[in-house]
Amino acid sequence: MHKINRINLEGHEMPTHWYNILADMPNKPLPPLHPLTLQPVGPEDLAPLFPMELIKQEVSSERWIEIPEEVYDIYRIWRPTPLYRAYNLEKQLDTPAKIYYKYEGVSPAGSHKPNTAVAQAYYNWKEGIKRITTETGAGQWGSALSFATQLFGIQLQVFMVKISYMQKPYRKFMMNTWGADVIPSPSELTESGRKILEADPNSPGSLGIAISEAVEMAMKDPNTHYSLGSVLNHVLLHQTIIGLEALKQLEKTGDYPDVVIGCFGGGSNFGGIAFPFLHLNFMENKHTRIVAVEPASCPKLTRGAFQYDFGDVAGFTPLIPMYTLGHEFTPAAIHAGGLRYHGAGAIVSQLLKDKLIEAKAVGQLETFEAGSLFARVEGIIPAPESNHAIAVAIQEAKKAKEEGRSKTILFNLSGHGFFDLGAYDQYFSGKLEDYSISDQEIAKTVGKLKKIIQD
Amino acid sequence: MHKINRINLEGHEMPTHWYNILADMPNKPLPPLHPLTLQPVGPEDLAPLFPMELIKQEVSSERWIEIPEEVYDIYRIWRPTPLYRAYNLEKQLDTPAKIYYKYEGVSPAGSHKPNTAVAQAYYNWKEGIKRITTETGAGQWGSALSFATQLFGIQLQVFMVKISYMQKPYRKFMMNTWGADVIPSPSELTESGRKILEADPNSPGSLGIAISEAVEMAMKDPNTHYSLGSVLNHVLLHQTIIGLEALKQLEKTGDYPDVVIGCFGGGSNFGGIAFPFLHLNFMENKHTRIVAVEPASCPKLTRGAFQYDFGDVAGFTPLIPMYTLGHEFTPAAIHAGGLRYHGAGAIVSQLLKDKLIEAKAVGQLETFEAGSLFARVEGIIPAPESNHAIAVAIQEAKKAKEEGRSKTILFNLSGHGFFDLGAYDQYFSGKLEDYSISDQEIAKTVGKLKKIIQD
Repeated sequence: MHKINRINLEGHEMPTHWYNILADMPNKPLPPLHPLTLQPVGPEDLAPLFPMELIKQEVSSERWIEIPEEVYDIYRIWRPTPLYRAYNLEKQLDTPAKIYYKYEGVSPAGSHKPNTAVAQAYYNWKEGIKRITTETGAGQWGSALSFATQLFGIQLQVFMVKISYMQKPYRKFMMNTWGADVIPSPSELTESGRKILEADPNSPGSLGIAISEAVEMAMKDPNTHYSLGSVLNHVLLHQTIIGLEALKQLEKTGDYPDVVIGCFGGGSNFGGIAFPFLHLNFMENKHTRIVAVEPASCPKLTRGAFQYDFGDVAGFTPLIPMYTLGHEFTPAAIHAGGLRYHGAGAIVSQLLKDKLIEAKAVGQLETFEAGSLFARVEGIIPAPESNHAIAVAIQEAKKAKEEGRSKTILFNLSGHGFFDLGAYDQYFSGKLEDYSISDQEIAKTVGKLKKIIQD
Repeated sequence: MHKINRINLEGHEMPTHWYNILADMPNKPLPPLHPLTLQPVGPEDLAPLFPMELIKQEVSSERWIEIPEEVYDIYRIWRPTPLYRAYNLEKQLDTPAKIYYKYEGVSPAGSHKPNTAVAQAYYNWKEGIKRITTETGAGQWGSALSFATQLFGIQLQVFMVKISYMQKPYRKFMMNTWGADVIPSPSELTESGRKILEADPNSPGSLGIAISEAVEMAMKDPNTHYSLGSVLNHVLLHQTIIGLEALKQLEKTGDYPDVVIGCFGGGSNFGGIAFPFLHLNFMENKHTRIVAVEPASCPKLTRGAFQYDFGDVAGFTPLIPMYTLGHEFTPAAIHAGGLRYHGAGAIVSQLLKDKLIEAKAVGQLETFEAGSLFARVEGIIPAPESNHAIAVAIQEAKKAKEEGRSKTILFNLSGHGFFDLGAYDQYFSGKLEDYSISDQEIAKTVGKLKKIIQD
């Protein structure tokens, strides 16, 4: 028989503060730069886009930042999220390792994204903002922010990558249901959109273009702000509730992880699960390995350059110090849409440079093999992004078996796969591909970057 | 600001027994009859289809039936489910009423169905059964049973109504992901399927046909059992964990419901939320109103006949005493697929006949108006079935406002609407219809029933 164990927190045990890793990093990340002056950007540069509280959080050195009461109340719709011991998976792998996973798919939008969406909507609401723009690829971030802005009475405009808009109507309907206005990008609404459409009326769009459109809309209206779902420091800050809860839940089991694993797109779910454990590596001399898992087809952490680069394709954002494949890099059409991004956030990049975390790249087929095994034995169908974390958790569990020693593995299951069942079907029918990428291809887009950081 | 309140139970507070209402009903339901002899069916008639433990539960007069440890362990993946106070909805309606809802959409399959699927898979597993057949319409039940049988290593064959099989591939992929074999019905695998296909090679199928195929497959193989997701007494028994948890959760608030509301298809989620409160109506002289909500287009409770009828179209099942529109009744193509069923279970029918519960019928447009308002203020997107319960909860809250007095409303939110976002899109774009049904139409199918019960 199968034994499945869920470790809950009670409501009153939910953490009351986010953890700000900037307070503890041995080397702080380099500052973002203005693309024209190459001078560090200041609060005044960011004020047209973000509320002042978020700008402060972006550079804060306070270790613990209190979760506002209004945000806390909304978190309580789905938080604390469960931590599971994956007994069935352990049994299936016949491993001496203990495998735990934190499950963020229980949020109304189905992933970890609402953790920051709610916080961002709140700080904007507090500053009297009535309208926010954002971009979304497959729709996870757009739907999370629709859910959040709706609760605060803020109107949301989402630029959705056109190909996803057409191919994935369900996420669009979800955003509409939560009252958001969803525009296929590139659009005629912005100069950047029109420019793209002039050159190619049939452009399928890209996340980079959509960011440019959303930023442009926010820039030209003083009552409109912009919101980003990953990469930035304040986004990762809000996600630390994941790891902080997991710490408390693990305390109840008596286990402590030897390795913590998260999939990696821009860094938000990874930072969320990992940073609280890094805190204990820093402060209590723990030696937990922290592993970020990226797609082999979008290997910025394992094969990218550490350099200043833009967050978007058009070059509207500040230059961010990051591991990057170059902002003109176009990732292959893998199903893990949330991991199809050319760069990594500044904090995570610095941590990797300082060898305080590890990175691994995994091919698409291995991730679906892992995810479908997981679904069958544990009963929860994971998002393709999360399958990357599962794949490495399985690698670690197999290694433990080979080495004949126990260890404790924790990974973050960042979201459910209800909208990705078509991808599972392709996998089962043998239609899914691995994508490889040559050094030449990477060199092409990386080579175009201005070399601001010298090796 | 919005205040949202989730009332949790801790793991150890989860009820350990199901509640069997047969023990307390003033009038027991009439027995099911063999269609040829019109004699009550005995255990030996049912043994080819169901494990003996379930056959016993079907007629048990024990009030409390212990949840087996293995079932309890699996329930703990997602149970206890949350109870919410719908503060935002109350505020939006400006009502003095308190509105609570129990949320079953957090299960891995996304509805209350796994509560009985896991129990049924367990009892079959315990009896050594290696293979189960079932039918599914839109796929909620099929996916719940796939999830459950997978955990017990039982092979599942699902006959899925062909039109849904073609139009709703996601639920099919979900079943495949959990290892089930999904067959579009009518199929060439069974005699009943072949007969239908001979007459109409393009038959879109129906739930009644799919039941006939699944039962036929189970009947002809002694190692194969059959499993049903609603209507039967043991199914409703397993669902009572919903109401038992809600009772404990409400205790923590100090409130007790004046009215309990559930949507109604065959009766499983309704019985689940309602029976534990009926228990207290019976035993502690409480006077909670219990309301079953059906679609106006499939009004068996409000406009059907109380008569013996088959559970399926082909007439393979025993005759069940029920409120029915006749087994040849074809419900309109509303989006609440789980409520498109001609009859009600025997227990619920008897309770309605004895006026111990009430029934209401609501049109499709009103249910989507209610559901989309709910999604926007509460943040959770409900299944179209659940929207029926929400619609009547809103009616009750408005009535409370008109009458200027407070009351406590509890409804069951039986599942999420992630696979029904297309229906919401149709609603928002004005394409959704109400379906009315004439007395003549009802008389046509009801008139064909053999009159076994005299008025």
